[in-house]
Amino acid sequence: MNKIYNPARETWSKILKRPTANFSDIEETVKGIFIEIQKKGDKAVAKYTSLFDGISLTDIQVSDDEIQTAISLVSDELKEAIQLAKSNIEKFHSAQKTAKIEIETTEGVQCWQEKRPIQKVGLYIPGGTAPLFSTVLMLAVPAKIAGCQEIVLCSPPDKNGKINPAILYTAQLCGVNKILKVGGIQAIAGMTFGTTTIPKVYKIFGPGNQFVTVAKQFATQFGVAIDMPAGPSELLIVADESANASFVASDLLSQAEHGGDSQVILVTTSKDFIDAVEKDVSSQIKSLPRKAIAEKAIKNSKLIYVENNQIAIDLINEYGPEHFIICSKNEKYYVDNIQNAGSIFIGNYTPESAGDYASGTNHTLPTNGYAKNYSGVNLDSFMKSMTFQKISEKGIQNIGSAIEIMAEAEGLQAHKNAVTLRLKAIENGK
Amino acid sequence: MNKIYNPARETWSKILKRPTANFSDIEETVKGIFIEIQKKGDKAVAKYTSLFDGISLTDIQVSDDEIQTAISLVSDELKEAIQLAKSNIEKFHSAQKTAKIEIETTEGVQCWQEKRPIQKVGLYIPGGTAPLFSTVLMLAVPAKIAGCQEIVLCSPPDKNGKINPAILYTAQLCGVNKILKVGGIQAIAGMTFGTTTIPKVYKIFGPGNQFVTVAKQFATQFGVAIDMPAGPSELLIVADESANASFVASDLLSQAEHGGDSQVILVTTSKDFIDAVEKDVSSQIKSLPRKAIAEKAIKNSKLIYVENNQIAIDLINEYGPEHFIICSKNEKYYVDNIQNAGSIFIGNYTPESAGDYASGTNHTLPTNGYAKNYSGVNLDSFMKSMTFQKISEKGIQNIGSAIEIMAEAEGLQAHKNAVTLRLKAIENGK
Repeated sequence: MNKIYNPARETWSKILKRPTANFSDIEETVKGIFIEIQKKGDKAVAKYTSLFDGISLTDIQVSDDEIQTAISLVSDELKEAIQLAKSNIEKFHSAQKTAKIEIETTEGVQCWQEKRPIQKVGLYIPGGTAPLFSTVLMLAVPAKIAGCQEIVLCSPPDKNGKINPAILYTAQLCGVNKILKVGGIQAIAGMTFGTTTIPKVYKIFGPGNQFVTVAKQFATQFGVAIDMPAGPSELLIVADESANASFVASDLLSQAEHGGDSQVILVTTSKDFIDAVEKDVSSQIKSLPRKAIAEKAIKNSKLIYVENNQIAIDLINEYGPEHFIICSKNEKYYVDNIQNAGSIFIGNYTPESAGDYASGTNHTLPTNGYAKNYSGVNLDSFMKSMTFQKISEKGIQNIGSAIEIMAEAEGLQAHKNAVTLRLKAIENGK
Repeated sequence: MNKIYNPARETWSKILKRPTANFSDIEETVKGIFIEIQKKGDKAVAKYTSLFDGISLTDIQVSDDEIQTAISLVSDELKEAIQLAKSNIEKFHSAQKTAKIEIETTEGVQCWQEKRPIQKVGLYIPGGTAPLFSTVLMLAVPAKIAGCQEIVLCSPPDKNGKINPAILYTAQLCGVNKILKVGGIQAIAGMTFGTTTIPKVYKIFGPGNQFVTVAKQFATQFGVAIDMPAGPSELLIVADESANASFVASDLLSQAEHGGDSQVILVTTSKDFIDAVEKDVSSQIKSLPRKAIAEKAIKNSKLIYVENNQIAIDLINEYGPEHFIICSKNEKYYVDNIQNAGSIFIGNYTPESAGDYASGTNHTLPTNGYAKNYSGVNLDSFMKSMTFQKISEKGIQNIGSAIEIMAEAEGLQAHKNAVTLRLKAIENGK
């Protein structure tokens, strides 16, 4: 772990620099597969599933039978845990519903804003060793609450042509319409263009490896929206002597086990606390199954001492962490002044894992400094806001002249005419 | 104008196809200028301002003196019109403020969502013949209401090194912090990387020509967010015999005068209405100063007859127009069923120009079918939503076991440990 004491402000951006990934070698691969799937549809999808996942499938749509089998394979204990998490995520995301906002801006000029669901959304769930059924909850639950008509889920098949039962169980529980055994670039390309089997969607959500990340970014060139740009996961903890070093160490490690490139940072106003956390990390890491991964991330981690809370919050806002844990007797100061963070965890009994799974907040969050300009996934991510206006004869009389003057000053005569014609018609009794 | 009667559903996507722009030749230019500005800052900015705008400037920041001069140059009539528009835009966007959403998802698990402003935003306002001070209103007003700390405005200087007075007047009226005489690719690159004079911003808003469009898209590779992908402006009107052909023609023309590539579409359930509108367009277009531009757009415009409202709304939702005018005796049907549109104008006295300038709604809207997955600019465009959670000892006892089970099932032992340690500490009375 790198211990840094009182870093000068001008060094912050260097200290806090994230690793920059170079995807240029992957881009050509992604482009090639996109073009082929655009042209050849399902046939090309099957080719790449065979190539990358090592399995030839005649039907990539998960059948009802497969879902029933999956349901029977998930333990009751896990089902109950998933249901509790789902209930909390539902409560929090349902609370995010916004009413129609309506206002008469000038007499006779009625304006309103309404949010309507994005009709077709695609959820990508990675395969691999860790079956991310928690991400199914985080994406499918708000999609359903938003009212998206078509919720498609793509996840790569394993060598036996199957998707992990917990993923299937969760997907059906959340009301996903269609589950497809397809992963990687071919899944993203399929949902971008649509094939006979894979529906074309308007927005793609979900995490993935570097191929999926580049594919999602590339998909945006074809009119598809994506949840947000992706980068390695991050945790920054601010803690003082009121914090528990053992808890803080466990949180840093829970971030570190995500991947060797995970970003793990502690900012503290207590020098002793740095040493205590370092000791606890060393002892806790020993028994982790994903020790090798965690060690790599911990090696690059930073324990930063600063003199006071003001300096700490400035540094944290410059970084803009995805996850931000506050264990400080001055927690209100940090809550009030944090400007850039994805999700914030407050107090000694609020580990990041709570938000990863079951508190109710979403775990799909902006990384790589995007907390400065992007929201984490929330109910609005599955909707778009539309505006409406209805103007009466009285209303156009009230604002018509202003429009005419402005349109003329911008040199747009036809814009002016559209108002003038109406005003004249009203004057002449139509 | 292209008259199309009862088009078969399978031909819709072809009929409604937007022109696809090929920007590949511009991309290299954009990349080159970005790299140079990243390296050389203001010096490179000055070089390109000289090259593209034909003026060498020693200081690109607009001074207080220049602003005072601009204020004196704008007529009182125009000032009043701008103030009326500003007042309506302020009312509508202020109404979009959302309260903190707070909920206890499980006893002891407090979750809330708060929106906080994007700290630094950049507004791009094109130069050229039409000084788009209305766009200054549409961007600066919500930025100010959102509470953005730094609002930077870039607009290209004219041959005399000046920015149109109406733009300067509006910018100062709306509380823009810094106005810079810089346009095109060099403005976008400057706000992306920051130079000695141009602040680095987190999100860039505003319209522009193809160079600006490509530059904004390219800027997203460097961590900057943008309002939305841009395309030519669009208007779709649905009208029946209750509509006024002359009004409808004037609206189609107000769209057509934007540019030769403007998309102009009428959908109607009345064959006679098509002919009436065509006649009115021909007569109104004659006296337009921007006749040549309008003619080009009108030549490509489409007047589409369909048999009933159900078919009409399906077609309209497939297109997803930026602007959608409803002049129909069945207006409620269209209002209730429109799923994909940027801004909707209802009734015979609600021309698109009203929303372009003064009704209060925003005129920065999704084009090119992006109404299917993007919101128009609104108050939230200048904020990001952040989530918070605070869990008590009781709370972690309530959800801790579910987290442990889920983390273990996902193979993430350290995530589990972070909870286990806390539960044990509580059991042992810490």
